[in-house]
Parts: sequence; C-alpha cells; structure tokens
Amino acid sequence: MDNTGKKLYIQEVAPRDGFQNERQFIDTEDKIAFIDKLSASGFAKIEVTSFTSPKAIPALRDAEMVMHRIQRNPDVVYTVLVPNVRGAQRAMECKVDEVNLVMSVSETHNRANLRMTREQSLEQLAEVIAVVRDSGIAINVSLSTVFGCPMQGDINAFDVYELVGRFASLGVEGITLCDTTGMAYPSQVRRICAETRRLFPGVGLTLHFHNTRGMALANTMAALEAGIDRFDASLGGLGGCPYAPGASGNACTEELVHMLNLMGYDTGIDVERLLEISATLPALVGHDIPSQLLKAGTRSRLHPPPA
Amino acid sequence: MDNTGKKLYIQEVAPRDGFQNERQFIDTEDKIAFIDKLSASGFAKIEVTSFTSPKAIPALRDAEMVMHRIQRNPDVVYTVLVPNVRGAQRAMECKVDEVNLVMSVSETHNRANLRMTREQSLEQLAEVIAVVRDSGIAINVSLSTVFGCPMQGDINAFDVYELVGRFASLGVEGITLCDTTGMAYPSQVRRICAETRRLFPGVGLTLHFHNTRGMALANTMAALEAGIDRFDASLGGLGGCPYAPGASGNACTEELVHMLNLMGYDTGIDVERLLEISATLPALVGHDIPSQLLKAGTRSRLHPPPA
Repeated sequence: MDNTGKKLYIQEVAPRDGFQNERQFIDTEDKIAFIDKLSASGFAKIEVTSFTSPKAIPALRDAEMVMHRIQRNPDVVYTVLVPNVRGAQRAMECKVDEVNLVMSVSETHNRANLRMTREQSLEQLAEVIAVVRDSGIAINVSLSTVFGCPMQGDINAFDVYELVGRFASLGVEGITLCDTTGMAYPSQVRRICAETRRLFPGVGLTLHFHNTRGMALANTMAALEAGIDRFDASLGGLGGCPYAPGASGNACTEELVHMLNLMGYDTGIDVERLLEISATLPALVGHDIPSQLLKAGTRSRLHPPPA
Repeated sequence: MDNTGKKLYIQEVAPRDGFQNERQFIDTEDKIAFIDKLSASGFAKIEVTSFTSPKAIPALRDAEMVMHRIQRNPDVVYTVLVPNVRGAQRAMECKVDEVNLVMSVSETHNRANLRMTREQSLEQLAEVIAVVRDSGIAINVSLSTVFGCPMQGDINAFDVYELVGRFASLGVEGITLCDTTGMAYPSQVRRICAETRRLFPGVGLTLHFHNTRGMALANTMAALEAGIDRFDASLGGLGGCPYAPGASGNACTEELVHMLNLMGYDTGIDVERLLEISATLPALVGHDIPSQLLKAGTRSRLHPPPA
C-alpha cells in the first residue's frame, strides 16, 4: 500500500462551520486576515461564510463584507453556505465559486435544524439549484446525519443513496456526506462510501467527519480505503456539537494533514504553517481549542534529553 | 470485510501507566476499588501496579498492598511492571500472573528514562527473565519508542526487530510495541506490525498507542489490518506525555472499545459499564480527563428534539 504522491483535496471549514458556533463575535477584519492566511496554505477549498439571515446566525452577519474583501487565490475554490434563493442571490452577487446547500437525511434532524420537512427542503433546494445552475457557479450539497442522527439514531443507508440520487439528477457537482455529531464508525464509513461511489460514479464526494467520539482520523482511514480523496476539516478542531458540551467538534485540519502527509499523501499543505495559523485561534475565539497537535507539536518536533 | 465476532483482547493500563503520572497520591483503597471494578469488566489483562522503588515512583508505593488485596478474577491476567530482579522478587511474592519488563528501542530515550545504555538494560532484563522463567509466571517485554523517539526522532525498524528477536530467544511470552509519545502513524504501524508478525510468528504481540497527536484509533485500524488482536489502553485516556503538556496520553479505553464493538469485533467489554467507571475518574485523580466519549456518550445515546 503505497500512497506516495497520491493527491488529496483538503477543504477548510473553520471560517463558516467553526466561527458560526462561537458565542463571541469575531471581528470582520480578523476573519478576513484569517481567511487570507488560509488562502496561502494549499487548501483546495475554503468555506468562507454563510448567507443566512443575520438574525439566525449573527456570528456571520458580515458575510458580504468578508466575501468581498478577502484576497482570492485562483487555486482555491471559495464556497459559501446558502439556505435559500435569497441567500443564493446574495452569494452570486459576491461572485463566489460555489454554493453549498444543506439538508439532513434524518427527518427529525431536518425538522429540528431547518424547521422544514425533508420534502420541503428538497423543494427549496431545487429552487436554489434552478437559480444557480446556469450561472457558472458550482453547486455542492452537504447531507447532514448521514452516519447517524442524535435524535433518531441509526439512518437507513438507502435514504442516503436516494437523496444523493435526487441531487445528482438535479445536476449538482458535489455531495458532502456529513457525520454531523460524530456517530460514524470505520466499517460503516467504508461501506457507505464504497456504495455511494459505486452508485454515483459521476458525483464528486467529500467526507466531513467530527471527532466527537475520537474517531475522526480512523474514519478518514476507512474513507481513504473506499477511494475518497476529498475531506472537510476545521483548523484547531473548531466547531462544537450542541449535543456534547465540552466534546470535540469537527475533524481538526492540522491533525488530519499531519497524518496524511506522514502517510505519503500529497495534500499540498505544510502542517507547520497550519500550526502557526492555528496558534492564533485561541486569542481569536477567546478559548482553548481542541487541537491536540497544537499542544504536542508535529511528530518531528524533538526535545532535548533531560540533563 | 466482516469482523463480526472476531475476538480482540483489551488490556487496561490505567492503574499503572495512568496513576503513575498523577501528582496527587491516589488512596490505596480507591485503587483497589477501581481495579476490582475493572476486573469485572471483561478485560483480558490489567496492569495493576509497578514494583519499582517507592522513591522513584511514590504514586505506586503501595504496590504490594494493592496486589494482595484486589479481588482476582481467574479470567483476567494480572500483570505488573518490574524494572529489575528485586522488583521481580517482590512481584513473585505477590503471585502476579505476569511481569512486564520495559526498555527503549532508542538509546537516547533508554538513557534518559532508565539511566542505562540499551546493552545494560538488556543485561538487567536477561537477569530478571532468568529469575522468573521457571516460576510459571509469564513474561512480557514492553519496547518503548518503537515508532519514534521524542529526543532522537525516527527509529530504525531493524533495531525494533533485533530487540524483539533477542527477547524472543530469551523465551518471553509477549512483546508490546509501544508508541510512547504518540509518534506512530498508520502506514508505519501497518508495516512494522506486519513485519514483526512475519519475523516472529510465535511471539504474542500487543500494541500500545498514545493519542498525543490524535491518531490512536487510526493506528489501531492499521494494526488490525496487520492482524494484531491485542491492545493496551487506559481508561479515560489517563497517562500523560511529559513532552506535550496538556496533550492526551494513552489511547482511551472506552473510545477504543466503543469503536471496536461498533465494528463488530468481540472485545467482551460493555462500553456503558466502562463509562460508569470512567465517570468516577475525575474525582479520583482530581482533574478533567481526556476521554471525549465520556463527554459525548456512546453513539447510541439519543437526545430529544428541541421543542
């Protein structure tokens, strides 16, 4: 098993998925400076912000300002979360590269999180897709609770495949399978990834793991074995889980990249540079962050022997 | 890949490897009660204590008392760490099932940690083995820094195989490959485990991971793929790393068992029971513990939808 030089695509979600969960508003200037540093770090994609109602997510009420003023690197895809047609129009005015739509595979979670039935979400997202499709802007759909719902429990994998199929038939470029609250486990990940790839070979798949129960990197291994080459992660592990106070949130970008680089994959990302950026996060968000790697340093950080 | 029913052996090291690192002395009665709960939880082996000098490790100065007064379950192997012949004699007087000897593959780490060259350690451990061998007590050797040394950096895998070979020729029953400071990564683990098994098919191998850089469970996956079926872990993730203040220590038992059970392996351990015991640890050690699973609960813990 030689992975040397195999290209992987790492997508940074901290500016949206991380900052959205912060209680303290992060200054627009700080957001822009943070994203500009990420843009020079080798990411394939950065999820910049969310074009939702400022009332719903006040933490990201500066979406336009951030999107307009970041320094865009032509090698990076800048994506934004969009809940509806109004959000899509705002995003298109900002000339984003991609819009990211969200709904849940779990009916209970979709109602709780989006206040709609899944059928209503599908209808609304189909309208967004119709508006965006001919604009040259790419469309990705993030499916929540693919590997389990914190309210409903297990998810029938056929519901996942059915939703992927419906969005594929609407012409979206990418689908993200999200482990929203860290319920995925490796054998399940391998099975669902392999089957989704088999059924929908034309769809670009991203895997989005959370480390809520410590399995983010083990699940990444399973996804790699199923041929997945595109992963979301959040610098510092930012992004909490409302159902597990104090637990880790998103897969931690620097830990993911550290492991993949050691395994010989080509992520295009320098982990020491990531750690420099990650080290600025505690001051930015006003609290300690889950990253273990920030505390320990990379594997190559050596220590003098005791005297 | 169906693991259903495949037997794995989980070995709990918190009473030795965890408690040894605690600043606050844990009452002997509390240690005994804790170990008695572990004994009824399905572990294949428990590392109970260390027969070192009370001056060197005051946290475990009650080794005899603990070993004499725990309730031994005939299905559990009770092992103790032993540094020298004197320690081995104390351990044998306590009728332990196994002694666990330690040295490092890294010359620098061995000198720093044990104040001896590797050759001196080998000589001393050979004496211990000679004393113990005919007593009916099993002998395991834990090799530190197999996957990297925090002072020296990379370790030549041939040094690992050479040491395994020397102890195998001395007739030890088991060898533990230890990732002492969390430097192991999956492709390396797979390679070294597979090669060690190929070279020494008669040696019982245990893998001992640390989660210092978030890879404990990913490395477990790699070891499983190389045919390893025996793992050390520490309840709550107890056991720090002196080179990474604030970082996680040992692989967390409840997180390991949670993942393996979900994958269909037969660990013989009920993770909910482990969480009950783990929940007593913060009070016992006087601080928060690294276990993410203790904060989040198992994957099957469901939450009511918001009103």
